[in-house]
This record gives sequence, C-alpha cells and structure tokens, in this order.
Amino acid sequence: MRSNLLPETPFLVLDVDLVKENTKKMSHRLAKAGVSLRPHVKTAKCLEVALIASGGQPGPITVSTLKEAEQFAGAGFNDILYAVGMIPSKLEHCRALIEKGLHLSLICDNVDSAQALSAFGTIHNLHLPCLIEIDVDSHRSGVKPNDIDTLTRVGNALGRNLCGVMTHAGDSYNAHSVDAISAAAELERLGVVTAANHLRAIGLPCPVVSVGSTPTATFGKSFEGVTEVRAGVYMFQDLVMAGLGVCGYSDIALSVITSVIGHRKDMGWLLTDAGWMAMSRDRGTAKQALDQGYGVVCTIDGVVIADLIVSGANQEHGIVSLRENSAAGKTLRLEEYPIGTLLRVLPNHACATAAQFDEYHLISGRQANGFELVGTWPRFRGW
Amino acid sequence: MRSNLLPETPFLVLDVDLVKENTKKMSHRLAKAGVSLRPHVKTAKCLEVALIASGGQPGPITVSTLKEAEQFAGAGFNDILYAVGMIPSKLEHCRALIEKGLHLSLICDNVDSAQALSAFGTIHNLHLPCLIEIDVDSHRSGVKPNDIDTLTRVGNALGRNLCGVMTHAGDSYNAHSVDAISAAAELERLGVVTAANHLRAIGLPCPVVSVGSTPTATFGKSFEGVTEVRAGVYMFQDLVMAGLGVCGYSDIALSVITSVIGHRKDMGWLLTDAGWMAMSRDRGTAKQALDQGYGVVCTIDGVVIADLIVSGANQEHGIVSLRENSAAGKTLRLEEYPIGTLLRVLPNHACATAAQFDEYHLISGRQANGFELVGTWPRFRGW
Repeated sequence: MRSNLLPETPFLVLDVDLVKENTKKMSHRLAKAGVSLRPHVKTAKCLEVALIASGGQPGPITVSTLKEAEQFAGAGFNDILYAVGMIPSKLEHCRALIEKGLHLSLICDNVDSAQALSAFGTIHNLHLPCLIEIDVDSHRSGVKPNDIDTLTRVGNALGRNLCGVMTHAGDSYNAHSVDAISAAAELERLGVVTAANHLRAIGLPCPVVSVGSTPTATFGKSFEGVTEVRAGVYMFQDLVMAGLGVCGYSDIALSVITSVIGHRKDMGWLLTDAGWMAMSRDRGTAKQALDQGYGVVCTIDGVVIADLIVSGANQEHGIVSLRENSAAGKTLRLEEYPIGTLLRVLPNHACATAAQFDEYHLISGRQANGFELVGTWPRFRGW
Repeated sequence: MRSNLLPETPFLVLDVDLVKENTKKMSHRLAKAGVSLRPHVKTAKCLEVALIASGGQPGPITVSTLKEAEQFAGAGFNDILYAVGMIPSKLEHCRALIEKGLHLSLICDNVDSAQALSAFGTIHNLHLPCLIEIDVDSHRSGVKPNDIDTLTRVGNALGRNLCGVMTHAGDSYNAHSVDAISAAAELERLGVVTAANHLRAIGLPCPVVSVGSTPTATFGKSFEGVTEVRAGVYMFQDLVMAGLGVCGYSDIALSVITSVIGHRKDMGWLLTDAGWMAMSRDRGTAKQALDQGYGVVCTIDGVVIADLIVSGANQEHGIVSLRENSAAGKTLRLEEYPIGTLLRVLPNHACATAAQFDEYHLISGRQANGFELVGTWPRFRGW
C-alpha cells in the first residue's frame, strides 16, 4: 500500500485506462451508428480527459458554463456548444470568446432570448449560431416538439443565427430498464427530428440536430435524422449509470480514496475521512432499485467489498456499514479494517464527486504492482 | 439592479452586517453563560469571517481539515483544534504545523490511534495535546460517556498528551422543537461532563471539556462543567437552522444570485442558472416539516417571495416553482420574472453551498441603495 507515498486522504483517483476504454467504446458505437460525438466536458472539466474523449486532438465539445468554454478554447478546442439557455447578460462574454476565434454555438428556447441574441449580433456584426432547445420529456427547459407556433417565433427571431435544434433526454436517468432507456432514446430522437422538420417545413434552416445523454447514447437504437450526440458521464461512469445498466462497477474510472479513522462496534460502523465534502451530497441512487448510500466501498485495489456502502456522511466523516438488506446474519468484521486502512469508494454521480476536488490522481488499472499513482491532472470549476 | 456591474450569475453573496450580528449574538450569549467560544471555521473557510467571529483578532478556532489548520495558522491563528479523528498517516503533517509554532489539538476515540499518537510524540519529543471524542447521541464517532473501560484505556494510551474530552451533538440537527434542542444540549453537556468526571476519578487530567453545534449552543440552558463551545454555521445561518427555529430567514447571511434563463408555462416553472453545482446537492430540509427543495427564492434585494422555492436542480439548471402545498389557486405569474431577472436563493446548508464557490461577493444589508456589491473575500477548499 505504500501509504507514505500517497497524498493525504481523502483524494480523488482516476483510472486512465478505464477512461480510454469508456471513451473508445462510445466513439466506436456512435461511429458505427453514423453519427458524430460532441463530448460534454462538464463531468471531467479537465483538458487531458477531453483530449482523450476527442481522440487525441481538440474536437467539437459541449460545455455547461462559459468558464468551461474559456478554459477549453484557451487549450485549442475551437468548436464549442454552450448547452445552457443563453441570456442577454452573458452575450458580452460570448462575444469576447468569439472574437478570439472560437466557433461558439448557443442555445435558447424563448422569443425574448432569441430577439436579444439577434439584436446583439446585429449591433456587433457578429454571427451567433444558436440551436433551439427542445423538450422531449418535461425534464427542464425547451420548446415542445409540436409547439409549431413557438418554434416558428423563436426560429424567426433567431433569423440568420438559427442553426438547428438540440435536446437532452434527462428523464432517461429515471428509467428502470434498458428497454425503457431505449424508449427514452427514441422519444429523444423523434422529438428533436420532429422539431427540425417543422422548422424546415416553414423554410427555416436546420442543419444541426443534436441529442444527448449517456444512457440514451448507450442504448439508442436509431440515430436517423440526428447529426450529433452529446454525452459526458460515459467517460468516467458512476453508480447511477451502473444502476441503469449502462455500465458495470468495473467500468467506473472515478473513485475517492479514504482512510478508516474509527470503529463503532456497537453500531457496526467504520468511520472514514471521506464525508460529503469529498463524496458530494449527491444521492442519485436513492431512487434506484439499489440505494448505494454515498458510495460503494472497495479495497484500495478496487475490489468491491460485498454489501459495504457509505451509509451516511457528515462534512468530513463517512459512515461505512453493510447495506440494510445485506444477507441475514452477515456482520461486518471491523477488525479486518484497522485504523488507517485505505479504502476506495465508487461515487453515485461522477459530475458531483469530481467537482469536490481540484485534481485527479491517476492510476492505470492494468498495473501489476497494486495501487500506484502515476501522475496528476488538474481540474477547474466555477463560472 | 445594475446588472452590468455585477459578476456573471450564479455567484455567492455574503451579507457582512448579518455575519457581524450573528457572531455578536453568539459571542454575547456564551460570554453571558460564562463559557468560551471556539468558532468552527469549516463553514466559512475564510480568514476575514474567522476574524469577525473571533472579535477582530485571531483567537482559538476549530477546523475540520489540516488544510484549514494550515491556512489559518498561516494567518496568525495559533490555537487550533482539529476536530476529526486523528490517524497515524496525518501525524507528520501535524508535526510540521506544530514545529512552526502552532498550538494544535487533536482528537481520537480509540486505543490504536492514541498509542500511535503517543509513540509519535515520544519519537519526535513532541507534545500532541489530544481530546478524547465522546459520543452522546450515536451520531457518528466517539466513546460512550459511561464506557469507563475504553475511556481509561484511551486516556492511558494518550498519557501526557491527554488534555480533555469533546463531543458534538449532531443529532440536534434532527430535532423537531426548541425544547428538543435544549434536551439535546443537556444530553451533550451531561455526556461530556460525565466522561470528564470518569477520567478525573481514575486520576487522569481533563482540563478541557468541549461541546458544540449551532443548535445546542443556541438553546442549551446550562454549560456547567463545560469549558468551551464549538459552532460554525451560526456565522451564516441557513434554511436548516431556520427550520429548527435557530434563526429566521432574515438572519441568513449567505445566498446565491441567479438569473432567470427560461419559462415553462405548461409546468409553472422558472428556469434559472443556479443548479446543484451552485446550490450543492444538500437537501437538509427534506426531512424537516417544511421541505425547501434546493432553496428559498427571494428578490435580488432579499425579500422572500412567498412559497417560491428551487423545487428541482440539474447541474447548471434550477427549477423554480411554487411549493406543492402552496395556497390553493395561487399560480406563479411567470411574466413577472422576465428572462434575465436576478433572483436570490437562500441555501439549505451554508457549509455545502459555500463550498461550491471560490469567493464571497459582499453586500451590506443596511445599504439604502438596493443591491450593491462592496467587495470580495476569498475562500479555500480541499484537504
């Protein structure tokens, strides 16, 4: 274990080999389906990871903040979709990025934003390519695919800036079977293609038809009419994805290393130093068939310890215990995990857990020598 | 509103006047009760806030990470309690801090850690003052107050490093009335005083008797036998504290400023750009009588908008709607909140929301000129 050589716990670990495998798998799948991939970098917020996802050279990416756009544009990514509804107060920031040479696409779902965007473009003689956001599952924002009136008005307000439609099947995260995810994917595809056809029918251009979520990208059966897929979590995978059947535990590239700091024999608990400040407060598996608490506990080498989860969390304390419905009579032998034992915790939600740290400590899953760090990659945050 | 002068949303705001009032109130209360205050800086992680809480000059503080100890020691705070169970792999880090002149106290609740600590102290000829952690409510770690056997063994293992006992009545966060909090405070006091007396009865020294949580510090009726109180959230307050009756909405010093980015008339939703990345995933009010979703929505000037909460959150999207049990027939007039409208959101849990940002934008609640930023204070994170 060579704990003297390791950073102080808790720290964040990324298995580079798994990132390569996960991204290769998705790239191959979509290439085979004949559709482009525009990786979402909001999970990783890391240049090195985005480069792997793009096949080694900067490619088209999706971002969730203008901070991400700035960071990635500065590193040579020059085709970026900012996939959160544009508002007038952020247009000056976009302009600064565009004037540095970035091809930045925006999204909007309402006439007011569309008019403001067009007016801004006219004043500054700027092309501001914009997709209309479509809502396929009442998940958050967007125009309904058959709301032809709104589509027409937003499309006309965007004028020459209109360049297509996009959607995100967020409800696919709540699916209870692979078939349900495939159905969500088809709903996603149909919705956005329908909206695109409405726009074309009234003479508006719609070259880009963009969909995306890791579950639907994984289990979608057809991408007919779709020009690009956006997804992000697939690079790392996590317990929510495992619960959906998108991946297995052994595909999860992200984990938190923690130390055992105490025992509660009366409660059947191990105490660790990875509380919610390290794991995040995300409880995304709470509504799944298998509630994983704040994470699944593994040995330092990544072997899952059956039924052991982070069942509770304070700011800097994790409570590790057997899951409630653990095999009858099975009890946790605390003495097998003395004070200082290093454990590895798989997170519910990679986006949320990664955001709690400023760097990834890298491991390479195929090493024969046990747990060894082979480098670090920085990550950023903020807006 | 002068939105052109403001940072891009979402951003974090701290009302300095409220911090001063909240800290003054707690300091006066505990001074009157004849007990010392050792503010917990894990909520703020900000030197300027810690100085206010300490009355203008560095005083004794509590930290939850060695990173906090480092940052505050570097700024002149030279009496620090690190209130998370010590493990051997962190002792070298402690030693480095102590050798720079810091009076650093540690805690432990088991013989193995106590022996390791003492051995390390002997080898390095170092005094490592250590409190025994006591568990009063089965909340997380600690020795039970009447577990005389363990107390004796840990106390003896600590030897000359033993300097007292400490506890945290974490269960007070789950109380349903002020009386229940007072009862939790009495349980906290009795538990730790009992443990102290057990140690003294077997001839071990126990000068420090430390308790702490914001609810119990606020509603405890007696501090007899207690030498110091630790608390942190009281500096900012939050919706969990408001739900407990510890404060009112108007005492909450921390908030997030967000922009309306869209409307969903069919759903009765405003979409904003403060999702869980800004608010954190903390749902601490979910188990309270009044579930506040991801936060209570106010006008930019801080006036609470009745029944309007952040009912859902994606990474960079907040869904704002009327609470489910809102007065019958009342509907949200979306047109009153056009695209770009700035809103202010009070957080469930100040520790978690503040941790999502790198700086506080300061406001002064008593300004007559509406919403105006008067400066920034940095905050740090990590371990």
